[in-house]
Formats: sequence, structure tokens, C-alpha cells
Amino acid sequence: MDFVSRVINADKRSIARLITLIEEQSDEARNLLKQLYKFTGNAITIGITGPPGAGKSSIVNLLAKKLRESNKKVGILAIDPTSPFTGGALLGDRIRMQDLTLDEGIYIRSMGSRGSLGGLSRASYDAVKVLDAAGMDYIIIETVGVGQSEVDIIKLADIVILVLIPGMGDDIQAIKAGIMEIADIFVVNKSDLDGTDRLVTEIQMNLDLNPDKSKSKPPIVKTVALTGEGIDELKNTIFHTQKQFQEQGLLNKKRKKRINQELRELIREIHLSQIASSFETKIDDFTEKIFNKEVDPISAAVAILQNSKDNIKP
Amino acid sequence: MDFVSRVINADKRSIARLITLIEEQSDEARNLLKQLYKFTGNAITIGITGPPGAGKSSIVNLLAKKLRESNKKVGILAIDPTSPFTGGALLGDRIRMQDLTLDEGIYIRSMGSRGSLGGLSRASYDAVKVLDAAGMDYIIIETVGVGQSEVDIIKLADIVILVLIPGMGDDIQAIKAGIMEIADIFVVNKSDLDGTDRLVTEIQMNLDLNPDKSKSKPPIVKTVALTGEGIDELKNTIFHTQKQFQEQGLLNKKRKKRINQELRELIREIHLSQIASSFETKIDDFTEKIFNKEVDPISAAVAILQNSKDNIKP
Repeated sequence: MDFVSRVINADKRSIARLITLIEEQSDEARNLLKQLYKFTGNAITIGITGPPGAGKSSIVNLLAKKLRESNKKVGILAIDPTSPFTGGALLGDRIRMQDLTLDEGIYIRSMGSRGSLGGLSRASYDAVKVLDAAGMDYIIIETVGVGQSEVDIIKLADIVILVLIPGMGDDIQAIKAGIMEIADIFVVNKSDLDGTDRLVTEIQMNLDLNPDKSKSKPPIVKTVALTGEGIDELKNTIFHTQKQFQEQGLLNKKRKKRINQELRELIREIHLSQIASSFETKIDDFTEKIFNKEVDPISAAVAILQNSKDNIKP
Repeated sequence: MDFVSRVINADKRSIARLITLIEEQSDEARNLLKQLYKFTGNAITIGITGPPGAGKSSIVNLLAKKLRESNKKVGILAIDPTSPFTGGALLGDRIRMQDLTLDEGIYIRSMGSRGSLGGLSRASYDAVKVLDAAGMDYIIIETVGVGQSEVDIIKLADIVILVLIPGMGDDIQAIKAGIMEIADIFVVNKSDLDGTDRLVTEIQMNLDLNPDKSKSKPPIVKTVALTGEGIDELKNTIFHTQKQFQEQGLLNKKRKKRINQELRELIREIHLSQIASSFETKIDDFTEKIFNKEVDPISAAVAILQNSKDNIKP
């Protein structure tokens, strides 16, 4: 069996190898992805985000188990854009997930930061494509950090879940504009704590302010990850949201948006690799000139590009 | 007086206006920066990073005041790459700094995330250039978050300060590889707490493992930001490090590296804006084709670029 067939047949080692090739941005990965592309489009991607300590990992674990009970194959991608001060957390999460990795119907993988912001987003979605082609029914994308890059990745998922907890300082006032709007499902975790009702009310009030009437109000699910309470409801809410999105054509709309963004990133990336060699030799010369104040950086960049223009290789 | 002259004469409103233009990535900013460039290169840039709660902001405040006592003009740039769950912190810090803003010799500005990672790094350094041309002797670059993007910005500074505190979980084991190496000065803040000596020892041991013998061991300064203890020593350590770097040619080496990186980012940015219009119309067509599995994303990107190649405007 060739490599592509092994991936489609969900061979865990081949999946792992291909995702590593993607992280390494190898040409081989590019060729394999081309061949895999026609086998994608069946998995539903679920993005999970929320502040640190909200219990995202526990919810991902429990949700994956619930989906397995419904006989669904589940892929989990943990995205960690290398926040240099959060080491350890990811490893800890993975250890907690050990009981899941023994299950043949589950594939867990963490991905770190490689190259640029756009690069990580694209690599994540290439990994999603691999898991999709390998026959996963659901692919959960979980972010470890909470930066803009993580949110950029999460919001490309078919269904976005925002996990909040009561008593997080100024509650949802602490969440910047733009985050509430990307959520398709709200989870209020640790809902056995005081302040749960207040948080639910605040979410509802915030949703009422949202001028986007094109989609219906996102459901709010209360969970207690520690006891597993509410996870069944979360699973059913996901199934319901998925059905709704499919019927309303929202799923396809979201996917076209994702494709559009991916295409832009690919064009940039491929084009830059094409022009890079033509100006590489000039960079050092101009660095000296700029340092010596013979030219300003902007004029130097324009001059280098002008000079390289005729040398761009197809 | 024209705009450029007003900036050079440290007119606060003109400085603010120009940095806003930079954030908006306007053509006007580009033209003004070209003219300003020859007036830059006098300021020493100090980058401060460290885990949340280490007291970076307090140290920046106290250090700025100390530098003012030495009759130095100080610019402070607070970089906040829009971590969506840390709102409020920045504002709080700025309020704490209110007593500084009344001082004519201090300029404080926060910058948010605009565009890409590279974009923020470049915008930050354009803002540094503005403050430099405006006659600031020291420009302190402080990051609010702790992601890779912040570290990328900080490590371009002339002098990098890493602030740590005792008892931060696994102490310095929690800090990922690559962070210890960029520090030129270590600050152990909250050094009245237990575990200070252990942390100092751990830093020293970690430095002993560092194979880079080209530069001397970075000094470690103990501070208590709450009482101001150690800030005088920190200031003197900065002066000493600066003198050392100048004598050893390290300052120029660092600056050339910064110019090199900036030039690369500029080339990418300018080039992308040049090619964007030529492929914009094709993106939507190909998004449909990719969605319908008629073509894979990579082949589409290559086809669009191939087609646009002849249409690139100089």
C-alpha cells in the first residue's frame, strides 16, 4: 500500500509521519496533500477556545469519549503556538489523555509553532485535512495558549465552542471584542460554582447586543468537567448545531471562507519562496547601507524588489 | 514647522499622530519614516519580557523614573498583541503610569496588534524609530502578553532584560528553550520572597550550560519593585552593559541584525501589496473550484501565481 492509501486507511504511524512532514514544510508533504485533497470534506471540525484554567482540555477529553460512545471517530489537534512561559501544560494535558490514545478510533496530536502566524494556521489546517482524509468524523482543535494566533485558527472551524467559567475577574467584560461573536456554542464550565447564573445572563445580554441577526442565538451549555455533568448535552448540542448549519448552508459558507483564507496564505508562501532567492544576495549589501544611513529601509526594499522583478522564477 | 521637524523636536502630539499613521499602515507614514530615518540611531532600546505577574510594568515605571533622575529622556512602548483574554491589564498599567505622563521627558505609548506577526514587529520598530528621532535617550519596549510574537519583538532590542520571580512553578524549567539565551540582564523581582537564592542559582547553572561563550555572562540583579529596592543597581547595570556592548561592537552587530530582519519584512510586505491586485479577482473563482474538489489548494495557488507573474506591477 502506498503512503496516501495508508493515511486514508487511518494508519496511525503514517498519519503521524505526514503531519511531521507538514510541520517541516517539506515538498513531500505538499505533494501528498495534493493527492489527499479529494478525500477530505467529510469531517466536522470543532474549535475550542477560552481563557486559561477554564477546563478546555478536560472538556475535550470528555467530549471525545462521548463521541466515541456514539461510534464516531475523533481526531484531536492541540495547537501550542510556543508561548515561552507556558511549557509543561501541554505535556500534562497529553498525559491526562493517555487512556484515549489506546483507543483505535481516536488520534491525538499536538502541533507547535512553525514559521509565521499564517504558517501555523495553514499547517494546522493541513493536519486537519490529513485527519479528515483518514476518516475521522470529528476533529477537535484545541488551543493551549489564548493569543490572537490561536483565535485565528479556531475561528476557521466548522463549529466554534467558547468555554467560560464563573468568576473570571470582570467576567465577560474581560474578553475582548470579536471573541464572543465567533462562538457557535457557549460552554459555562465549573457551573457548580457561584456566579454561574450571572455569567449566563451576561452572555445572553451580550448576545442580545450583537447586531448579526443572520444566525440564531448560540446555545449555552452548563458543564462540570470534574463530574462529567453536561457533556452529554454538549454532544447533542454539537449534533444539533451541525444539522442546523448544514440545512442553512452555513457549513459550506464557513468552509469556503476557510478555503479562501488558505488560498491567500498559500499564494503568499509559494510566491515568497519564489522571489526569495532572487533578492537574498542583496539583503546583506543593503543592510550595511541602511546601517550607515546611506539609504532608508523602505527605499532599500523598493530598490531590491525593483531589481528582482525581472529575475522572478516561475 | 513641518511635521518631520515637529517630531524631531519631540512634540508629543506629532509623535502620537505619526505612530497612529504607522499602526494604520498608511502611505503617509512610509514617506515620513523615510525622512526621519537619518535622525535615528542615538537611542538605546531596552526590551523587557517575563512571565505574567513578574512585575514587568512596575519595573518599567521605576526604571523610567530612575533614568529621568539621570536626566535621560525615556520612551516607553507597551506592546499588546491582542491576546483576547487579557484585556484590562494594559489599561491598568497605563493608569499606574499616570504620574509619568506629566513629565515632558517621558513618552508612553501602547501599540496593539495590526496585521500579521511580522507586521506588529515592524510597526513596533517603526514606532521605536519615531521616538529615537524625537530624541529619546532610552526606549523601553515592554510586552503585555508572553507569546512568541512578543519575544520576537523584544529580542530585537539593544539590551534584553528577562524578569523572573521566585516560586514560579518549576522555576526556570518552565521557561522554554531560547528565552534564557536572549537575555542580556536577568532581574529577579520579588527577591524578598523565599526561593530567591535558589532561582539565582538555577539561572547561573543554566547560564553555565550555555555554549555561547562569545559574550560574557549576563548579570543578575535582585529587585523588589514594591519598595524600589535594586532599581538603582538595575539602572547602573544597564549603563554598564551598554558601554560593554558598544566597546565590543555587539551593539552594532545587534542593530545590523535588526535592520536585516526589518528589510526582509519590508520586502515581503511591499511585494505582497504589489502582487495582490493582480490575483485578487482569481481568488473567488478558485475558492469555488477548490470547494468543489475540482482542484487542490496548492495547485490552485501555483496556477494563480503563474497567471499573475506577467502582470506584476513595479
